[in-house]
Amino acid sequence: MSQIFSQKKDQFKTPKAFESIGEDIYSWAEDLFPICRSISGEGVRETLRYFQRIVPDLKIEETKSGTQVFDWTVPDEWNIYDAWIKNSKGEKIIDFKHSNLHVVSYSEPIHKKMRLKELDKFLYSLPDQPDAIPYITSYYERRWGFCLTHDQRKNLEDDEYEVYINSTLEPGVLNYGEILIKGESSEEVLISSNICHPSMGNNELSGPTVVTAIASWLLSQENLKYSYRILYIPETIGAIIYLSKHLDYLKKHVIAGFNVYAVGDERNYSFISTPDEDTYADRIINHVYKHHTENNYIKYPFTERGSDERQYCAPGVDLPVVGVCRSKSGLYSEYHTSLDDLSVISPNGLQGGFDIVKKAIQVLENNRVLKVNVFGEPQMGRRGLYPNVSTKDSVKITRSLMNLIAYSNSKRSMLDIAEKTNCYIGDFYPFLNKLIETGILSEIRER
Amino acid sequence: MSQIFSQKKDQFKTPKAFESIGEDIYSWAEDLFPICRSISGEGVRETLRYFQRIVPDLKIEETKSGTQVFDWTVPDEWNIYDAWIKNSKGEKIIDFKHSNLHVVSYSEPIHKKMRLKELDKFLYSLPDQPDAIPYITSYYERRWGFCLTHDQRKNLEDDEYEVYINSTLEPGVLNYGEILIKGESSEEVLISSNICHPSMGNNELSGPTVVTAIASWLLSQENLKYSYRILYIPETIGAIIYLSKHLDYLKKHVIAGFNVYAVGDERNYSFISTPDEDTYADRIINHVYKHHTENNYIKYPFTERGSDERQYCAPGVDLPVVGVCRSKSGLYSEYHTSLDDLSVISPNGLQGGFDIVKKAIQVLENNRVLKVNVFGEPQMGRRGLYPNVSTKDSVKITRSLMNLIAYSNSKRSMLDIAEKTNCYIGDFYPFLNKLIETGILSEIRER
Amino acid sequence: MSQIFSQKKDQFKTPKAFESIGEDIYSWAEDLFPICRSISGEGVRETLRYFQRIVPDLKIEETKSGTQVFDWTVPDEWNIYDAWIKNSKGEKIIDFKHSNLHVVSYSEPIHKKMRLKELDKFLYSLPDQPDAIPYITSYYERRWGFCLTHDQRKNLEDDEYEVYINSTLEPGVLNYGEILIKGESSEEVLISSNICHPSMGNNELSGPTVVTAIASWLLSQENLKYSYRILYIPETIGAIIYLSKHLDYLKKHVIAGFNVYAVGDERNYSFISTPDEDTYADRIINHVYKHHTENNYIKYPFTERGSDERQYCAPGVDLPVVGVCRSKSGLYSEYHTSLDDLSVISPNGLQGGFDIVKKAIQVLENNRVLKVNVFGEPQMGRRGLYPNVSTKDSVKITRSLMNLIAYSNSKRSMLDIAEKTNCYIGDFYPFLNKLIETGILSEIRER
Repeated sequence: MSQIFSQKKDQFKTPKAFESIGEDIYSWAEDLFPICRSISGEGVRETLRYFQRIVPDLKIEETKSGTQVFDWTVPDEWNIYDAWIKNSKGEKIIDFKHSNLHVVSYSEPIHKKMRLKELDKFLYSLPDQPDAIPYITSYYERRWGFCLTHDQRKNLEDDEYEVYINSTLEPGVLNYGEILIKGESSEEVLISSNICHPSMGNNELSGPTVVTAIASWLLSQENLKYSYRILYIPETIGAIIYLSKHLDYLKKHVIAGFNVYAVGDERNYSFISTPDEDTYADRIINHVYKHHTENNYIKYPFTERGSDERQYCAPGVDLPVVGVCRSKSGLYSEYHTSLDDLSVISPNGLQGGFDIVKKAIQVLENNRVLKVNVFGEPQMGRRGLYPNVSTKDSVKITRSLMNLIAYSNSKRSMLDIAEKTNCYIGDFYPFLNKLIETGILSEIRER
Repeated sequence: MSQIFSQKKDQFKTPKAFESIGEDIYSWAEDLFPICRSISGEGVRETLRYFQRIVPDLKIEETKSGTQVFDWTVPDEWNIYDAWIKNSKGEKIIDFKHSNLHVVSYSEPIHKKMRLKELDKFLYSLPDQPDAIPYITSYYERRWGFCLTHDQRKNLEDDEYEVYINSTLEPGVLNYGEILIKGESSEEVLISSNICHPSMGNNELSGPTVVTAIASWLLSQENLKYSYRILYIPETIGAIIYLSKHLDYLKKHVIAGFNVYAVGDERNYSFISTPDEDTYADRIINHVYKHHTENNYIKYPFTERGSDERQYCAPGVDLPVVGVCRSKSGLYSEYHTSLDDLSVISPNGLQGGFDIVKKAIQVLENNRVLKVNVFGEPQMGRRGLYPNVSTKDSVKITRSLMNLIAYSNSKRSMLDIAEKTNCYIGDFYPFLNKLIETGILSEIRER
Repeated sequence: MSQIFSQKKDQFKTPKAFESIGEDIYSWAEDLFPICRSISGEGVRETLRYFQRIVPDLKIEETKSGTQVFDWTVPDEWNIYDAWIKNSKGEKIIDFKHSNLHVVSYSEPIHKKMRLKELDKFLYSLPDQPDAIPYITSYYERRWGFCLTHDQRKNLEDDEYEVYINSTLEPGVLNYGEILIKGESSEEVLISSNICHPSMGNNELSGPTVVTAIASWLLSQENLKYSYRILYIPETIGAIIYLSKHLDYLKKHVIAGFNVYAVGDERNYSFISTPDEDTYADRIINHVYKHHTENNYIKYPFTERGSDERQYCAPGVDLPVVGVCRSKSGLYSEYHTSLDDLSVISPNGLQGGFDIVKKAIQVLENNRVLKVNVFGEPQMGRRGLYPNVSTKDSVKITRSLMNLIAYSNSKRSMLDIAEKTNCYIGDFYPFLNKLIETGILSEIRER
């Protein structure tokens, strides 16, 4: 596998042109696609080491099998080396080397001959999608199995087959990755992604690659207000492990969080709300989507929760974490099959996912509650604060400028004002510093 | 009148099959239909004694004429024995025995001959409904009068008529009935109905017969959480009397109330909100109607109040009582005429009224605020809490199960969660005990 | 100019028939139309003296040029006596005496010959409205200029022109007018209008003439509950001056305010909300418009603020002042041009503006929180409180009467109840006193 890295080694630099980082993100996904990941094992570690070359601050953590974490027990570590089914002529009709989806994730080792009738009990296919290999897992019940297309299955003859899975399922560790980027405040923003899926594109190479680009971008920024904690975890059990270790700390420090997954296609934009739909993260992501997509996005209630927001928003955990997706996992046709390959995602699609998270962070960094230091309207003319040339854009800017002043009553935040005046908070960024420097506005508090 | 009871005496048993109690309720209405009720008198007592045979716990109370109750004075007791109008040939052209609606309720006794021109001042009919005898009362102003169809009236010839009303209107008592069914808590649910209408079906034999069935059903239940107080009162003055005696107690103990009337037809479902539309009773009845009728019901604001919710929700009384109707009284064409006979109500219609009140009580009995005792999602698999067979129903059950856990944050009640996740609270009942027994959930408070 | 007054001297009486005061208001606008007003100078004083003859309580105040007021400095006083442009033949092709809009307001004096190419830099016209003279001002930057129709401008030949502006722009004073009408309470209602616009009708002779009629009407009323403060100020700088003198007092005493402008046409009804759209003034004006116009009006958010609500609602000022308009200034085609002449306004249009403000004041004067002194419904019959004759109107009155009683729970005001029961608060006025006299209702507090 080390070849994959060496081929593109010159590319592992902190990206500069974040406006077109979609291309880089896509190339990372290409590199990582062949690796067989699961919730544990060498594939996970290899994936984490790949991201570590892009962001050396990434730390790889491990938790031992058998550790009790909340209501769960960390399962044994699974590694797989080879797997196939041969017919009586000795021909490999199913080969793990062709697609790692062919083997049920966490399959026990087996080497045995059996008739089709017996074998059939261990086969998984999708009658409704006859050309797709389904993605099947069995983390907490020991079994073995092969996944194949329904077309393949229908062509299997009554024969004696040799099945072979060369895997280990033994006490070991479960890994996850973590990056902490410190800002001025100890208040934190949590950004979480999954690294447990084998060869699939949108769900889930889009999430960890996009958050890696976000980490690179954050590291290129000066004077971050907040600290950023970026997680690469196996879905469900990884979140449970992380929360069991750090829940108290997170509850004290996290002001907003984004669980990033299925963000690489070009079809939809969507997010999954927290249960009460009222956290800072909900407000920010809703505002960003509204203005980034011209209101063309889907806001899912928490009843449509899909990934680790299930853990982050569980009662007693109650972190302000929303799910950030383009086409939400579970709701696009290629989901959890071999059809969710690199053609489902694209540089453009990934760029869009990156931009949403970046803009959400910019809202966090720029938003604050301001106070106007004069009574009545300031006389803008003598301060040269009106744009000199009157264009359609300048009218919009002047309107935003005057609205920010007219609504900054020491109670409303910039985000409140943007929502109230139906504009994007980003419209306020260009003149914010000038208004503070001239003393017209001053900051009262962060949000 | 005792015949009416003896004919069906074998029927006065506590009904078992509450799924089809509509038939029983209808038969009670048939028995009670001929009785001439008003706000006082023997007809009221006879009606109360009939219900007493079904629910022996029913207590019959009385208040003396002339008693001052809030802003009102209890009127004299009215009894009527016979009434008719004869033409000059001695033929009875109007006969109380044919329909007790023929006499204005609370008519003074009279026996006199008069020409049509004089008589006409004492006649009441409905030009717009020429085949209906109207229902007219004059409780607080002494008068007499006859009601007849407009067709009859148009055919009256210029003749000398003999009018005869054999009634008494003298100091006596005003009666009402009361059943108290005690539960574990001293908190109470108030269920109120009227027993003052003469021979009319939907308004009002449906209300007192349905609440009698509710009383029977409550008595068949074990371990009731709340206590239930069921009233059979003459409209307005009965509510005023009851409140004047028990207002402080009711304000301390009643958590929700249902004023049940006009619940026997098959046309609409509706309810009348409290003034602020925000009491526990409003929420429960709205939830029940929404899911019982697939959103096909009418929610009336308090401006459309019709019956004793006028008293229960008056300023200073402020009890959380909603009006529960099918086709709301006043808003169906047969209302307050002889056309509102036994054909307007039906076993099915009455069953629907019964089911609504029963379901509202089930919400009260089952609703509570729960706490999840694990952080993050519980591992359902090892507890065998997922349904074994995956059907469309089981998917819905699993969804409800996981939602109840995901939203039970020690603040939201089951009713809150049902509303938030857009399901019926009843979907939670089947697995509620199992979740509590396995320790995943525990009760925090009642609501 | 004194002719204008003497012609109609007999008219300066307190109007009695306020139902048709639109005619008087229109005649005042006719008188005042020719005067050349600006934010300072003799035209303003002449206008104020005119209103003083109608309402002698009006006091004329002055502030010296150079005075610092919040973020602004009071500018020099501007007076103009004559202005014209002559062509080389000595013909006046532009003449201030024909329209005072021809001169840029606050133009410096000039007398000079120049070619068209030079002159053109000082000309202002509207290509999109070629028959309109634009209204241009330059209060805070010294310049001079002429305004003309685009048709005129296109016909100017390459010639030598003589330009002449006989004006003074020197230290002096800036004036405003103020009327205080005292009621029982020291709580005040602020009514503000502008007197700085030259010959234009809707924006802005409608505002000061309508509020003068309001002052006359208020003076004809007995027992006013609140005090009323009526301002005649130059836009922006006048509001800034007034606030800089009286802000603390106003913040303590003003419970609602109405900035009245562009209220003379017959096209729309509209108002401009305060930033949070939740003050007493917002609620009242919304209620009045809704019922006065049968829901046919425009509610603008504060982002559409146009006139002195910009100052009254600025952060730190935060007065509960809404803008009251018919066709909002800035949003009708004749706005700020010579086309906004006396044909844009009408007696009917002005009457409508007057009625809205009058009705808003009636809400303020009549609204209160009431308590019902009986439990349950009062027995209305024995008190003779039901209308005797049953007509469509009487049914509505009875409904309003019973609703006022049924909802007066010592918390809801009459305005709350009107909104809740979807009627106009004015429906309660006729029987309010009787309900209080009979002791059924008593006042708990003012609002």
